[in-house]
Amino acid sequence: MMYLGYSDRVQPMLEKLRRFIDEEIIPNESRYNQELEGNRWSSPPVMQTMQAAAREAGLFNLFLSRDAEPFSQVEYAHLAEQMGRSEIAAEVFNCASPDTGNMAVLAQYGTPDQQKNFLIPLIAGSIKSAFALTEPAVASSDAGNIASMARRDGNGWILEGEKSWVSGAGDPRCGFLVVMCVTDPKAPLDQRQSLLLVPLDTPGVEIRRMISVFGYDDAPQGHAQIRFDKVRLPADALIGRQGQGFEIAQDRLGAGRIHHCMRSIGAAERALELMGQRAQTRYAFGKPLSELGGNVDVIANSRIEIEMSRLMALKAAWRLETAGLQDALIDIAQMKVAVPNMILNVIDRAIQLHGGMGVSEDTPLAKMWAAHRALRLSDGPDEVHREMIARNEFGRKSQSYL
Amino acid sequence: MMYLGYSDRVQPMLEKLRRFIDEEIIPNESRYNQELEGNRWSSPPVMQTMQAAAREAGLFNLFLSRDAEPFSQVEYAHLAEQMGRSEIAAEVFNCASPDTGNMAVLAQYGTPDQQKNFLIPLIAGSIKSAFALTEPAVASSDAGNIASMARRDGNGWILEGEKSWVSGAGDPRCGFLVVMCVTDPKAPLDQRQSLLLVPLDTPGVEIRRMISVFGYDDAPQGHAQIRFDKVRLPADALIGRQGQGFEIAQDRLGAGRIHHCMRSIGAAERALELMGQRAQTRYAFGKPLSELGGNVDVIANSRIEIEMSRLMALKAAWRLETAGLQDALIDIAQMKVAVPNMILNVIDRAIQLHGGMGVSEDTPLAKMWAAHRALRLSDGPDEVHREMIARNEFGRKSQSYL
Amino acid sequence: MMYLGYSDRVQPMLEKLRRFIDEEIIPNESRYNQELEGNRWSSPPVMQTMQAAAREAGLFNLFLSRDAEPFSQVEYAHLAEQMGRSEIAAEVFNCASPDTGNMAVLAQYGTPDQQKNFLIPLIAGSIKSAFALTEPAVASSDAGNIASMARRDGNGWILEGEKSWVSGAGDPRCGFLVVMCVTDPKAPLDQRQSLLLVPLDTPGVEIRRMISVFGYDDAPQGHAQIRFDKVRLPADALIGRQGQGFEIAQDRLGAGRIHHCMRSIGAAERALELMGQRAQTRYAFGKPLSELGGNVDVIANSRIEIEMSRLMALKAAWRLETAGLQDALIDIAQMKVAVPNMILNVIDRAIQLHGGMGVSEDTPLAKMWAAHRALRLSDGPDEVHREMIARNEFGRKSQSYL
Amino acid sequence: MMYLGYSDRVQPMLEKLRRFIDEEIIPNESRYNQELEGNRWSSPPVMQTMQAAAREAGLFNLFLSRDAEPFSQVEYAHLAEQMGRSEIAAEVFNCASPDTGNMAVLAQYGTPDQQKNFLIPLIAGSIKSAFALTEPAVASSDAGNIASMARRDGNGWILEGEKSWVSGAGDPRCGFLVVMCVTDPKAPLDQRQSLLLVPLDTPGVEIRRMISVFGYDDAPQGHAQIRFDKVRLPADALIGRQGQGFEIAQDRLGAGRIHHCMRSIGAAERALELMGQRAQTRYAFGKPLSELGGNVDVIANSRIEIEMSRLMALKAAWRLETAGLQDALIDIAQMKVAVPNMILNVIDRAIQLHGGMGVSEDTPLAKMWAAHRALRLSDGPDEVHREMIARNEFGRKSQSYL
Repeated sequence: MMYLGYSDRVQPMLEKLRRFIDEEIIPNESRYNQELEGNRWSSPPVMQTMQAAAREAGLFNLFLSRDAEPFSQVEYAHLAEQMGRSEIAAEVFNCASPDTGNMAVLAQYGTPDQQKNFLIPLIAGSIKSAFALTEPAVASSDAGNIASMARRDGNGWILEGEKSWVSGAGDPRCGFLVVMCVTDPKAPLDQRQSLLLVPLDTPGVEIRRMISVFGYDDAPQGHAQIRFDKVRLPADALIGRQGQGFEIAQDRLGAGRIHHCMRSIGAAERALELMGQRAQTRYAFGKPLSELGGNVDVIANSRIEIEMSRLMALKAAWRLETAGLQDALIDIAQMKVAVPNMILNVIDRAIQLHGGMGVSEDTPLAKMWAAHRALRLSDGPDEVHREMIARNEFGRKSQSYL
Repeated sequence: MMYLGYSDRVQPMLEKLRRFIDEEIIPNESRYNQELEGNRWSSPPVMQTMQAAAREAGLFNLFLSRDAEPFSQVEYAHLAEQMGRSEIAAEVFNCASPDTGNMAVLAQYGTPDQQKNFLIPLIAGSIKSAFALTEPAVASSDAGNIASMARRDGNGWILEGEKSWVSGAGDPRCGFLVVMCVTDPKAPLDQRQSLLLVPLDTPGVEIRRMISVFGYDDAPQGHAQIRFDKVRLPADALIGRQGQGFEIAQDRLGAGRIHHCMRSIGAAERALELMGQRAQTRYAFGKPLSELGGNVDVIANSRIEIEMSRLMALKAAWRLETAGLQDALIDIAQMKVAVPNMILNVIDRAIQLHGGMGVSEDTPLAKMWAAHRALRLSDGPDEVHREMIARNEFGRKSQSYL
Repeated sequence: MMYLGYSDRVQPMLEKLRRFIDEEIIPNESRYNQELEGNRWSSPPVMQTMQAAAREAGLFNLFLSRDAEPFSQVEYAHLAEQMGRSEIAAEVFNCASPDTGNMAVLAQYGTPDQQKNFLIPLIAGSIKSAFALTEPAVASSDAGNIASMARRDGNGWILEGEKSWVSGAGDPRCGFLVVMCVTDPKAPLDQRQSLLLVPLDTPGVEIRRMISVFGYDDAPQGHAQIRFDKVRLPADALIGRQGQGFEIAQDRLGAGRIHHCMRSIGAAERALELMGQRAQTRYAFGKPLSELGGNVDVIANSRIEIEMSRLMALKAAWRLETAGLQDALIDIAQMKVAVPNMILNVIDRAIQLHGGMGVSEDTPLAKMWAAHRALRLSDGPDEVHREMIARNEFGRKSQSYL
Repeated sequence: MMYLGYSDRVQPMLEKLRRFIDEEIIPNESRYNQELEGNRWSSPPVMQTMQAAAREAGLFNLFLSRDAEPFSQVEYAHLAEQMGRSEIAAEVFNCASPDTGNMAVLAQYGTPDQQKNFLIPLIAGSIKSAFALTEPAVASSDAGNIASMARRDGNGWILEGEKSWVSGAGDPRCGFLVVMCVTDPKAPLDQRQSLLLVPLDTPGVEIRRMISVFGYDDAPQGHAQIRFDKVRLPADALIGRQGQGFEIAQDRLGAGRIHHCMRSIGAAERALELMGQRAQTRYAFGKPLSELGGNVDVIANSRIEIEMSRLMALKAAWRLETAGLQDALIDIAQMKVAVPNMILNVIDRAIQLHGGMGVSEDTPLAKMWAAHRALRLSDGPDEVHREMIARNEFGRKSQSYL
């Protein structure tokens, strides 16, 4: 049976989480932004304060913890939705992307040393991390385009290449990168690549620039373009087996896409909440906006689209949980197309209802829109997912893609 | 927990049903249409043949049977989806609308005599029925607009008024109508109306015309406009209590909307199946359509929209089942807006891919489209449902509507 | 300079035409339909009456007349828009498709005998005509798919093949078909075909069936599927030169697409007019529909879409007039995609605002919708036109298509 | 006759302008942005260089010049389109908004002193200007909401109030503001306001903050929130008559909306150009993007939408020119809804085709999108324009709005 609702275990946690976000995080958003104003590439002090409160409330590390069984995919999806309601919430609970993905990878495939030196500090929140997959100037959704290469150098490796959209690398706390690179250029496409763990301070690792998203630098995490210039790495840099990079990355991205989409749904709930408040309190021509023009339809359609998006993402989570990644790929692809598109509509309508405030820094909406617009491209553009869905419909296998 | 999948009980039934439809019904569609061609207002003989086969296969009366526990809302929703794959399937299983709704009403509210004289023959498939709610020239989604009136006449009633869109009344086997009419003009809106059971051959009941949907007469059931001219009815014509009409109708329409939407999803699956076949077998400019233009996107989007629609309708079924009608009203309203609109897109794209065949009688698509277009108006137009959803969002109560 | 407005010559004609349609045609629509009810495959007598009135008013043969200079493309486009306001108007003025296209072809390419025997009676309104291009079971937008073939037989021809969607062939007054067929199978694609003039009563011409459009038979003209079984034709059956079929057909279809689209705009104006009346006179929940939900937006968007559609079609007409067909092909393709899609939206919204009446025979809207839906497929489906537009954008030549 | 094309006068100017933009401006865009990087709130030196070249080429002051007859509305619309192709082009030709609007106001309504002190330097390009209409925290599209007030103080005025979205006020060259404020609180709505000319360095004028649009500060012009705290102004601050503010502003905004929309069309042409280049040069899975998925449709639809948008805006320009503002209001409203929405679609598709580059600073697309998204709100949100269009359809007058 497909169960998509709240389990007994997750329900009280969800309520606690929601209350914490409403009381401790949303009221601190503007302070976070002010603190960031003066010093963009360091973490605002209020983040520490909020994290301390989250620890105390037993809400730190909801994704992976040393003390408790992990939540199921469906359970965690519900938690991720709540975290999506504030742009800064996931980090407060040490559940921000790409850290959670890296935690999962190191927990499953990491060597004891990798776990000790990188996973444990990551879970402790004392370091942050990044994931380097996309490359500039090629379509990275085609795994065959990846050109960064690591060749054997004695026991170790020499890594050469360039990566872009390395999200999180701007944060001074970022301790390491997980880098996808070719290690066996002649192997079949899905065994050609490996993942290497690269501390950010390794000689030859150069952040060439930070990339903006609709004018936002997304500090302090940011999105880096990074050059790897003859970067020497020890044998222990390899995560999993040589040639296992594609497999691990697919695994990592599968769950990651669900988390992204569930957070999107939380963001859309926030947008709808703001829209409802605005519609009832803003007056023009003597009436509240809720009684003008098609605003009733706009709000109803937004509710409908959020509900459908949530069900679709929960179903993908349920499938991943019960049938495994291969059988969940199409569900995840469907979700990855549908959810960001629907959610962008919701946010866009909220912007419109807020007038000039909507496009400015006076609401979280404009930045929310920019982040979700990027989501239609990151982790595979809509087009690649649609291709995969259609081929499945035709009973044909889809081409290799990440 | 929200469970939307197949129960152990329904799964084997579903497989049997799907096979029966594929093997016994779809291959008979063209024969059904041919038999109908010569004699539009009688049931084609092949319907009897298929019904006999369904009885033998244990598939007759899946909605309500004297021999078995009824399926749950979610279970029946899955069955209804299968039946939606062929326009003529629901009747084969004695599960066509409005008969199922009338069965439910009579089973719950009918007097022993009503059950004996009308429910039992209806379940046996020896008579058919209709439901008369909409009135010409007013917005019937506003319950306050209903003008047909029954006044006391001794122990019995005299019914006056006019109804339109009485679907099923064109069928010669149609034995009775369930008629919504005002019985207490001064009562509060939701207690003003009652339901009366009116045999179609009662003196004063006059079918004034059959209404077409796009160019279809929808024979042999059809949609009748019916005049009630001083129709005398016995005391036993009353279904349920006097003044209970609105309540019973809401109840009836709640589940009915879910059945309609699930059948829509089955129809959309059929459209997508046809689309996929066409895309792979039709060539233009040296390529199959599947490799031309945006057909891959068209097919992928259709799959996505079907999946979302199904989840939304199943959720409404689950809520109705576990929380009751009042708590399910918003879920049902969301479904009632979303599903027909999404499904119309799917069918429309299938039409486009079929070229001229798509708009003609050479595929089931054109008729399917017409029927679903009407569904955006029947059982409440989109606009009324959206209003209800938005008001719920604002925490306000919505106005009374059917 | 691009001039799209009313010339001094056309303005008074337009006013006269509009008044005639409002006063003489629209009030006769229901009578036309009633007369047709009893005898679908003959022209209702009221058509004669209206045509007589049009003759008297000097409005007969606005497309091509023996007495006056033809109107320019832009001028005629404005006239065609008016005629689109009623489904039966174009025929009243002897300006119905496909007759006008056939008139143009015979006037330009016809032999004196063809003109005497077919063009003159066509202009006189004593016969009607049809155009046979599309073939069943292939994508006829790909000219390479046309399989009907005429081979030399002495001085004459023997025609073999099958055509579908031969609109107008159901009318008992239909005197002849213009048939596109292969005459030089080995010639380059654009010189492979010729047009033959085939009287409908020629032995071997068999109407196999009439095809419906969303349930409508479109009587009395209808859409025929016609078999040509060893049809012997005289030498004089050839229109233009052998191998000139593609060129003439393109020419004919170019202007024809503009006329279709301008009539669509007239139909959309009618739909918007009906929508506006309905919105102001129909009440629900105590308010006119115009003050409920998003109806204001619905009406405003419809107005905007009509205005844009008209400008686009007028521009195509202007380009055809001033630059010739080759330079106007892209403008015509743009119009052919944009206008029917926009207009379908307008009609669909009008249907929604009319509730059940909208899908029934109680307004002209449902039939109007069906006809325009077919227009997205006839004269080339949207997809073929979009391909051509995109290739032009890339500076590449598009493939041969009709 | 409606003429929308190129006049003999404008055609050579257009060609010159297009060449200048391609050769002198677009190649300087990145230098402009780099120079701005270090010093956001001053004009980059390359702007001076480009302006000098424009002067030499006879392209400076195409909107209003002391030496030549102004172009007609349609002619200038075509010029404005070209300028829209680069975000920085309009300023190069001294045709940037809001300067052109202020030039028009001062040329028509300015006193000789105002013209000497403000108009002449503005035309010379030695100062810039801004227009202060919108107020924070109210719906400024409802003219009744304007609260900034100027009361008489001897011969002069004392101005109190707060304005937001004062575009251009961040530029150090900004010499003066035109401020809309109430001068006769008890007058009818359309005579309640006046325009005052306020030098930016007047005591009491305080820029409280610069507002961002998505993540862009739009430096060096920016969008200011400005407080007027007991600002004393001389009698000569009044532009036009007391109470004439609404009338002048409507006049100013009418033409301004057309210029904005035509520049949008130029921007969309640039986006489509980039899209076409990308589609042909970027490969994935072994094919150029132009042959993958629905990209052909995406490009064709973009071309169609641009063409329709241009025609609609040109028609509004033609109406304004030939019939005057009152008769052009509905055309302008239609354009103001349709054009930004269509153009946003085009830009969004170009973003999608560019992948990560599309949302970053690596193409002009992301910033272009943000600017056009704001255009759906500035100069009246879509909703207000739609309301006006629908009321016109109903034959009713619309409410006063700016």
